[in-house]
Amino acid sequence: MARLTHYRLCPFSRSVRLLLGELEIEVALAEERPWEWRRAFLALNPAGNLPVLELDDGLVLCGAYPISEYLGETVKAHPRDGLGVPTFPGNPCERAEVRRLVDWFHRKLDEEATTHLLREKVYKRFQGGGAPDAAVMRAVARNLDYSLGLIDHLMAERRWLAGEELSFADLAAAGHISCADYLREIDWQRHPRAKLWYARMKSRPAMRAILKERVPGAAPPPEHYADPDF
Amino acid sequence: MARLTHYRLCPFSRSVRLLLGELEIEVALAEERPWEWRRAFLALNPAGNLPVLELDDGLVLCGAYPISEYLGETVKAHPRDGLGVPTFPGNPCERAEVRRLVDWFHRKLDEEATTHLLREKVYKRFQGGGAPDAAVMRAVARNLDYSLGLIDHLMAERRWLAGEELSFADLAAAGHISCADYLREIDWQRHPRAKLWYARMKSRPAMRAILKERVPGAAPPPEHYADPDF
Repeated sequence: MARLTHYRLCPFSRSVRLLLGELEIEVALAEERPWEWRRAFLALNPAGNLPVLELDDGLVLCGAYPISEYLGETVKAHPRDGLGVPTFPGNPCERAEVRRLVDWFHRKLDEEATTHLLREKVYKRFQGGGAPDAAVMRAVARNLDYSLGLIDHLMAERRWLAGEELSFADLAAAGHISCADYLREIDWQRHPRAKLWYARMKSRPAMRAILKERVPGAAPPPEHYADPDF
Repeated sequence: MARLTHYRLCPFSRSVRLLLGELEIEVALAEERPWEWRRAFLALNPAGNLPVLELDDGLVLCGAYPISEYLGETVKAHPRDGLGVPTFPGNPCERAEVRRLVDWFHRKLDEEATTHLLREKVYKRFQGGGAPDAAVMRAVARNLDYSLGLIDHLMAERRWLAGEELSFADLAAAGHISCADYLREIDWQRHPRAKLWYARMKSRPAMRAILKERVPGAAPPPEHYADPDF
């Protein structure tokens, strides 16, 4: 069985777990605490980022970008219903739109919000860094709000973020949004269309499994966190 | 003619200009100063990142990730010699290695070094932010050194970064390394194998054109900057 090294509150890890779930690929999970920078983990992936997917044939795929594109290229049909995989559907133009949105969440939102949020509210608890920095947390809230505004905007005209089909853009977004929601940083009242999109994401079996988990050392998530009817 | 909105010292812009040059695709260049966050530019690309490629048929591609993958999918043969394009050569495993390295430079090295380097040594000059922060610059130097060590390591066994063929991994790396070299942050004496790789990169026509440019408002580059025999 393939093995995925991940961390429960890593948005990149979550996006790949969602993708593996949608593709019905079973993996053994190994958890890595990314703030520890363990030598054994760096020997597996010198870049030090999560997740890492080790396939049965020995191939090691490091990071959400190589993993998602590899699965998009090699898993050609959905095992359940014979439809295209939800990774990068459509023609090259439509796939460019999926990738623009993946980049929005996995690069822009990560740099502007999620990576700081995790450091301030989770990693600091383990590393003894003190309370979250109020100025950083204000910037995190502002930048999350801007990306939720993007989701509102897209959902006015589309069924899923990149178009009519579910794609890796939805899974990348759900990775970041679900971590921020766990840490009580999403104001859903301000984003009614994004909320409808997220309710549909929450109903998917791969997402339901992730939302059941609790994270040792982090404060408990809000009441609505795992509830699709929130 | 297609139009590329870029900034001369943006590593992502440079990587895409190198790719367009390798593919012999001519574009009109429009320069954008990324620290200005102009409304007209944000209307074109709400994420605010560079570069943006506008194709003749009206398609707008935002960011190095969608642009490189789109060109990899649609430009199927090299116009000059009929070989495969240098974007993502090989089979899915080999392409995963290209993408691992693209991710290394365009995400990891950018977050750990290049983005800070540009802010401290270039953007601050225009925004009146004062002298470069010494602690930030020490971290930048350390992180650049680690990535040059990766290039040394790869070049011990390979012709190009991801294998025997030039790929977008080389172009992404050259985008970041050439910006850092302009700003005098590369200690080439410490990295003899990386230096050989970079000498070969510098000899390519697409790179030579970029290395001729000078950046208004930034200090001049070192003597060796544009010289392939350095």
